[in-house]
Amino acid sequence: MQSLTVNLARRSYVVYIGSDLLHQDDLLLQHVSSSQVMIVSQKPIAKYYLGLIQNTFSRLQCDAVIIPDGEQNKSLASWQQILESLLKNNYYRSATLIALGGGVVGDVAGFAAAVYQRGVNFIQVPTTLLAQVDASVGGKTAVNHPLGKNMIGAFHQPQAVVIDVNTLETLPDREFRAGISEIIKTALLADEAFFVWLEKNLALLLSKHKEILIEAIKRAVQIKSKIVEADETEKIGRRALLNLGHTFAHAIESCTHYAEYLHGEAVAIGLSLAAALSEKRGSISQKDVERIRQLFISAGLPTELPASVTNDQLIAAMSLDKKITQKGFVFILLSALGEAKIVEDVSEAELNKLLINYRR
Amino acid sequence: MQSLTVNLARRSYVVYIGSDLLHQDDLLLQHVSSSQVMIVSQKPIAKYYLGLIQNTFSRLQCDAVIIPDGEQNKSLASWQQILESLLKNNYYRSATLIALGGGVVGDVAGFAAAVYQRGVNFIQVPTTLLAQVDASVGGKTAVNHPLGKNMIGAFHQPQAVVIDVNTLETLPDREFRAGISEIIKTALLADEAFFVWLEKNLALLLSKHKEILIEAIKRAVQIKSKIVEADETEKIGRRALLNLGHTFAHAIESCTHYAEYLHGEAVAIGLSLAAALSEKRGSISQKDVERIRQLFISAGLPTELPASVTNDQLIAAMSLDKKITQKGFVFILLSALGEAKIVEDVSEAELNKLLINYRR
Repeated sequence: MQSLTVNLARRSYVVYIGSDLLHQDDLLLQHVSSSQVMIVSQKPIAKYYLGLIQNTFSRLQCDAVIIPDGEQNKSLASWQQILESLLKNNYYRSATLIALGGGVVGDVAGFAAAVYQRGVNFIQVPTTLLAQVDASVGGKTAVNHPLGKNMIGAFHQPQAVVIDVNTLETLPDREFRAGISEIIKTALLADEAFFVWLEKNLALLLSKHKEILIEAIKRAVQIKSKIVEADETEKIGRRALLNLGHTFAHAIESCTHYAEYLHGEAVAIGLSLAAALSEKRGSISQKDVERIRQLFISAGLPTELPASVTNDQLIAAMSLDKKITQKGFVFILLSALGEAKIVEDVSEAELNKLLINYRR
Repeated sequence: MQSLTVNLARRSYVVYIGSDLLHQDDLLLQHVSSSQVMIVSQKPIAKYYLGLIQNTFSRLQCDAVIIPDGEQNKSLASWQQILESLLKNNYYRSATLIALGGGVVGDVAGFAAAVYQRGVNFIQVPTTLLAQVDASVGGKTAVNHPLGKNMIGAFHQPQAVVIDVNTLETLPDREFRAGISEIIKTALLADEAFFVWLEKNLALLLSKHKEILIEAIKRAVQIKSKIVEADETEKIGRRALLNLGHTFAHAIESCTHYAEYLHGEAVAIGLSLAAALSEKRGSISQKDVERIRQLFISAGLPTELPASVTNDQLIAAMSLDKKITQKGFVFILLSALGEAKIVEDVSEAELNKLLINYRR
């Protein structure tokens, strides 16, 4: 087992990364200080692990809420379902929530924990690769609103994060690959050596080799932790670097109505575009762009825009994303392979030229 | 104008207390750093002050949400109404919310500000005496749920609190007196000299003499600030002292279905009972109890239990309030006039004996 600490003063916590961790009772138990534990999960994962975790807490009051599957259920309705279950079962302010599942479960359960009796403890047990490397670290919780994604939420740090790579065995292959996209992102924005390591170890990573998987997750989480530690509530701009590739990705997801790509897939295209734009601005080489593209392709991830979406649609979507200043569009770009920066003066003409060249 | 700072490191803020403050444009303007201001209010007070505040922000985007009146609308529905209005009008994360009204508006708008895009700025403009001395300071925000009061909320400190005592001119007399109850509470739990000052100045206070009113509010806010500064999120027990009289008050409100007493009135009875229990335990004199009772009576506030509610009902309600340890019931009692402490071993027999003697 590997572990690392996210240092946020009184809100610091440990992230455990290893194999078969959910069979180690003590790990979860040591982070629960009360006699009440509410587990929030979704059916596909609950069927494998819910009973196991409930056994861990058999001497405490332990209930479970199963929220419905899918991103469309990252909603106020699911959030209220959790709150009602806490109220009906007389949960105190000393209670602990455990989020067992992917990003949706973590975000909704985390937001319920943030507001139940003005805040209770919670533990993240992320079970998708994307949630393990991204959503589980940083304390961002939220639900979607019909008028906007992630619009209602809070910063609420967990007591601990338990990443058991065994949970990835039942994860569909496409979702697993989509998670790799965010791992590559962290390497691109902060760690060239990690990028080289990924180029070398990608085949083992794709085969879910335990040691390689644990190492990759640990390094990605470490990079994210350092950024979050410097800017916990996204006030000073440092945390914005984590959005590398994401302005493009959000536009692609929005223009394809969230139906064509998994988030990580849209991020892979977005990162390829961000790399290309960085090259056009002279901060990385054409060879770097090709290496980045090649890594995504080797991971079975897309790197080109879908033919069905026009430049105008994409640029309109990016305008709505509030990423515009008086100087132009705001993007996170690479200042070198393994280093990111904020750029605020990207013109529409520049974007048009870029987008034309990145189509299937 | 008087002002004082609530010291909470990066979350510190100023409380302004004075007469005619809402006509001073600069006061509100200096605490708004963005181009968008959303005012949340209720009809009775909006009719007097909404136009005035909107004028202050005439050069910015400024919208208003009027939530329905009454404690029953301190609800998730009112909270969603505010969030939807923010979304529909494209409010950014840099926006400022202004809560113009009593405790319900402050609590619901504050909770909307706490979670909109994971937290935006807000300014409290409390317009009832109760909200001015109590709800406006300390950062507690919440809505009620059918299964429990204040069960869903957050700690979210405002950017500033503007207390204009002129807003009290239109406040119904009964509500004004109920607010005095919380002022007396602060004196009882932390400041004997302030208690003596209140005995001396009560008549002027009741006549809404501006200088006296400003002084009374300032001293009450100061006491609350000091306690909040020592225990911002109610973790170490210090903040619990603010609940002096409130375990009794909550039981009385619950047993009379929130229909018979205003909160401040129930608190007056609760404080009288807490004083009597403190005397039975030998920490204050019978003469002190009588002075306290007399002050409430002079303020036109009740000090005795309603005949309609039995001891059993009250004790059952207090048991539900989660204020029990293995040693007995938990109460905040007076260790002296002007000093409070937590007591954890009050027995049911002791309560029964006390409650019998405090009936109309």
